[in-house]
Formats: sequence, C-alpha cells, structure tokens
Amino acid sequence: MFNAEPSVKALVPFVSVHNMMRLVHHIGIETVLSELTDAIEADFRRWPMFDKTPRIASHSRDGVIELMPTSDGVVYGFKYVNGHPKNTAEGLQTVTAFGLLADVATGYPVLLTEMTLLTALRTAATSAMAARYLAPAGARCMAMIGNGAQAEFQALAMKAVCGIDSVRLYDIDPQATEKTRRNLEGSGLTVVACTSGEAAIEGAGIVTTCTADKQFATILTDNMIGTGVHINAIGGDCPGKTELHRDILRRADTFVEFPPQTRIEGEIQQMEADYPVIELWRVVNGEVPGRRDARQVTLFDSVGFAIEDFSALRYVRDWVAGTDFQQSLDMIADPDDPRDLFGMLQRAH
Amino acid sequence: MFNAEPSVKALVPFVSVHNMMRLVHHIGIETVLSELTDAIEADFRRWPMFDKTPRIASHSRDGVIELMPTSDGVVYGFKYVNGHPKNTAEGLQTVTAFGLLADVATGYPVLLTEMTLLTALRTAATSAMAARYLAPAGARCMAMIGNGAQAEFQALAMKAVCGIDSVRLYDIDPQATEKTRRNLEGSGLTVVACTSGEAAIEGAGIVTTCTADKQFATILTDNMIGTGVHINAIGGDCPGKTELHRDILRRADTFVEFPPQTRIEGEIQQMEADYPVIELWRVVNGEVPGRRDARQVTLFDSVGFAIEDFSALRYVRDWVAGTDFQQSLDMIADPDDPRDLFGMLQRAH
Repeated sequence: MFNAEPSVKALVPFVSVHNMMRLVHHIGIETVLSELTDAIEADFRRWPMFDKTPRIASHSRDGVIELMPTSDGVVYGFKYVNGHPKNTAEGLQTVTAFGLLADVATGYPVLLTEMTLLTALRTAATSAMAARYLAPAGARCMAMIGNGAQAEFQALAMKAVCGIDSVRLYDIDPQATEKTRRNLEGSGLTVVACTSGEAAIEGAGIVTTCTADKQFATILTDNMIGTGVHINAIGGDCPGKTELHRDILRRADTFVEFPPQTRIEGEIQQMEADYPVIELWRVVNGEVPGRRDARQVTLFDSVGFAIEDFSALRYVRDWVAGTDFQQSLDMIADPDDPRDLFGMLQRAH
Repeated sequence: MFNAEPSVKALVPFVSVHNMMRLVHHIGIETVLSELTDAIEADFRRWPMFDKTPRIASHSRDGVIELMPTSDGVVYGFKYVNGHPKNTAEGLQTVTAFGLLADVATGYPVLLTEMTLLTALRTAATSAMAARYLAPAGARCMAMIGNGAQAEFQALAMKAVCGIDSVRLYDIDPQATEKTRRNLEGSGLTVVACTSGEAAIEGAGIVTTCTADKQFATILTDNMIGTGVHINAIGGDCPGKTELHRDILRRADTFVEFPPQTRIEGEIQQMEADYPVIELWRVVNGEVPGRRDARQVTLFDSVGFAIEDFSALRYVRDWVAGTDFQQSLDMIADPDDPRDLFGMLQRAH
C-alpha cells in the first residue's frame, strides 16, 4: 500500500479505527460482546499460565499513561492507554488506546490495532463475565451511574451475556444521560433516565458505577445498597480515584482481577492492606464459589487487567486474518541478510 | 489516506521503514549520527528531569521483549524492542523495534515510528557521545568486534563525532566481517579485516564489542587490553549475556547509563552489587570527570536506556513535522462528542 516494497516480514497487520468499526458491525455488537466475554473467560480459566505485572503507569498532573504487557509464553501482548479526565472539556477522549500482539518465539509484531473501541468492548465484556458468576439469579434490571463513553457498552454486554432487559441511567450531567438513552433506543432494552443515583438503583440487581473524576468520590453510600445486589465498580481505577464509600466494602464480598494492581488502583485502595479479596479467576475455574446466596452483596472491583486486552487482541487477530479489515504497515526493517541492516539502508539511496 | 474520514485528532503521524530510510538519506547518515549525538547529550545533561525505570522485560527461552518508557513531564515516549539472537538463523532480525511519542497533557500519541533503524542509529550515537568524554585524546583507530547489524553505524558515528579514521574488524563469522568491510567502502574510513580479536585491537584507542550470543561470553580478556584504551561494550545487555572477562572490570573505570538497569543487564552483572560505577550523565553535565589520564582504562557498559530513544524520537518528530516523511494513521477513535464513543460506532454502520 505504500511506495516502498518491503518484504512480507516487514509488514505488520494493522486495524484502524475505521476498520474496527466495520468489523464490529460485520459481526454484530452483541455478538462481539458475547464472544469477547467467552474469550476473556477462557483466558481467566488459564490465569496461572500468564506473565503478570501491575501495569507501568506514568502519572502527571492531569492524567496517566500506562503500558499493560502480558504473555502466555506463545503470544505477547501489550496495550498503551491513557486516562485524562479533563480531556473531555477540550473535546478529546478521556481514554484512548492502541495495542500490539507479537510472536514470543521471534519478537516480531503480528498485529497493531486501535484499542479505544476495543477497550470499551473488553471492559464491558469483563464486567459481564464477572456478573455471570456474581449477579443475583434472575436479575433483569441494572443501574448505570456515570453515562460516559463506557455506558452503552456496559448495558449491551449485560443484555447479551446476562439477560438484562432494563437499564436505569444516572449522571450528574443530564446531557450524558440523554446521549446514552438516545443511543440505546432500538437496542431492545427498556431505558429509564433518572435524576439521582438513589432513583437509578431502585430495583436494580446489578449496579454499575463508571464515573471519571480523578478523585476520591462517593458515588454510592452504604445505605443505598440493598441486600443481594451485585456492584460492578468500573470507575475507581487509579490511585486517588474511587467511587464507593468504604462502608460498602466492609459489607461486600469483593472480587478482583490481579490483587497487587487492584490494591494500588481499585476501590480497595481505601482499605487496609489485608482487606480480604477473592481473585475472579479462581471463581471462573471453579476453585472458589462466586455468589453463594441471595442476600450477599458482591462487588467486582474492576480496574482492567492486561490479560483482558490480550484476549481481545487475539480475538481481533483471529477475525481479521486474511481479510480487508486489516492493512499492512511497513513498520519492521527486514533486510534480506538480517545482519545487513546498514546495507539495506545504503541500497535504499 | 484510508477510506474513512477520521477527525484530525484521530490521526497519528507515522514514519515507516521506507520513510525512515528516505529521511536518513535526505539528511545524510553522518549528519544524522552527529545530530543524534547532540540530542542525546542534551537530554543526558537534564537527566534528573526524566521519569526513569528499568525497562519492563518479558523473557522467554529464545529471547526477550521489552518496553522502555520515559517522560520529561511534557512528552512521553516508549519503545517496543525485542532481542532474539537465534532469529538470524531464520532470516529474521535479532533486534526489531518501534516507538511512540505522546503528549503528557492529553495522553494522545503524536508520533509512531519504526525504530529498528532508529535504534541502530541512536545506539551508535550514544556510544559516540560516551567516547567524546572517555576515549583517549587523539584516538584515530577503533576495533569493532562483532560485525553484525550495529557495526557500520558504530564506525560511522565514531568517525563523525570523534574523528576516528580507521576501523579494525573481527567477527567469528568472516562473512560478517566481509559484509561490514564492503558496506564501509567509500565511507572515508580505512577498514582492516582481522582474523582474531587480538589482531583487531592492535593500536586501537577505542575497542567496541557488539556480539549477540545470549550467554556469558569472553570476547575480551584482561591481557588484551592495554593502558589508556576506551572499551565501548554494547553486546552485554541482558541477564546472562556478557562479553568481558571480570578482570577487565576490576581494572577499568566503568561508566553506565542507569545503574539499576545496568546492574541487571550490563557487564557489571558479573560483579558484586557495590561495584563502583560512574553515571555518564554526571560526566556530561560536568559534575564528575570523564577520562582523567592517558593510562586509565575506561569502560562504557552500555545497555541502552529509554532516554536515548526519547531523544531519537523527538529528533525524528522535529524533522518529519509537516513533511511527506510521515503518513497519517487512523489509530485514535475520536468522536465529535468525546463521551459519545458508542454513537460514533453506531453512526459508522
């Protein structure tokens, strides 16, 4: 596609934002969310096989830039992702991302892709996977507090995977709620716009919080949470950024992705270092129970972990291989004689 | 350039391998090496301003994949780089790389570029910068042991920056030496192909080692190193991979980039944890002397550090801005209303 003629090894398959959107529509968004949920669940089941490290964060006054690598010994993946709550005011995304897969045996990249959309999809799929094990039986109604970029994805994943049929929305900005309501028209979900968090959680078996302020906030207080509810807390995901009152954490059974990362970034950063948590992967592989009874308050303290991105990257790679959803990017210098990098440069003159 | 029409914010400037080669020829390779040396030196001078962390390595049986991030508080950069010594046998590069710059204030990427060539250039420039402070006065001859992909870049950087006029080559594979000799024809350097390491170092004021085996090797022994020589050790750059006998380390004054990383990855991994080292940036900013006398053996135990890549990325960004050396990559999803990521997806149907 470019004016050079690099060798095939030099070409890295690339999925642009445009092609990611085409791919999602080609498959169907609810199917993508269901299939991603299954892909993530399959990788949670083999959790011990992965290299795991807390993500590498570079914090600044207005936000954070993170690298999230992992590997299963065969494939290596990482995501670049930022989080800048003030971006919205300047017309920019709070979160943007891209990701890469590489072959562990050679170190050569095998996929580069946009991941802003893919992160929204995998975050919703991870929430749905957790809810599959933790939500109260027969839950049909969810509350969605925080109606930003993640809201519709959450609602559709809970519909596709857990059978949710109605969503109660609340955001401090009514325009955000209206945006979400409008986008979910025709989705088959009953959508109710509420004017307070208290109103939104009425009758909801799943309460999802996804707000973006980089501060200790109290989106939910203990008196708002009835018995048997599953709380899906998405927004508390970096140091100094939480959404729940600590009294909720004292009462709930808390499930997490990777404890060393969640203790730094999750809701549980408010708690003592030995606050008990249950690793979600142990629930998925059957080692420990998820929801045990109808009165239990469960909390998925979600911060997002590299393995979820890895699952999503592999899902995309499998879908785009050999299709025009991918383009070829001349990103890897690959001389005929691998020791002759200089000769390749010289001959290009 | 693609069939979508994403917003300007969604487009990330991309420098392909082809365009990197065009750019280097446009500027002139020796000029690139000199200017990169100055760019890296300027960043070493303000070393304390940078976020520094040992690179994040994912080791496997045949190699390593690394992420190397840093930031000066205004710009964030990282490099993806692999090191797979066995790749050569399969016709693949030992080292491939790409890198990214982002705006710290927004987290938005501002440059994606190939870095296989750029890493070769910046590694040579870093060696030349160190030699500027450490090589014996009036050195005109260098030995180059290990004639792989880095060899010609090293020779030309030492010529352009330090005034080297002759290079003595040795590699266990004579074809590698012949490749390097041929590539340096017409460079203005006197090139001598040697049949042993001992022969190569004869009369050389600068001895550069750059071999690729992932093992503890002994490319140089103590009796090979005369007084006053500067050793530029490039190849020992990951755990279990060294090139020098430890007796050389006992005798030399050793200069390093970032001690926490070099103690893991460099020649000094062979030594006790309190083996004395001098941080090169303190030499560059005038805090401590480099070479003190004509009889001193100096060693630059180079492993490569993120700040060097950062300097190189900024150098490329400044050169390609507004030119056709860059292309636009549709990598960042950027809806008109930043909270309406789902709406952007929906409207793309």
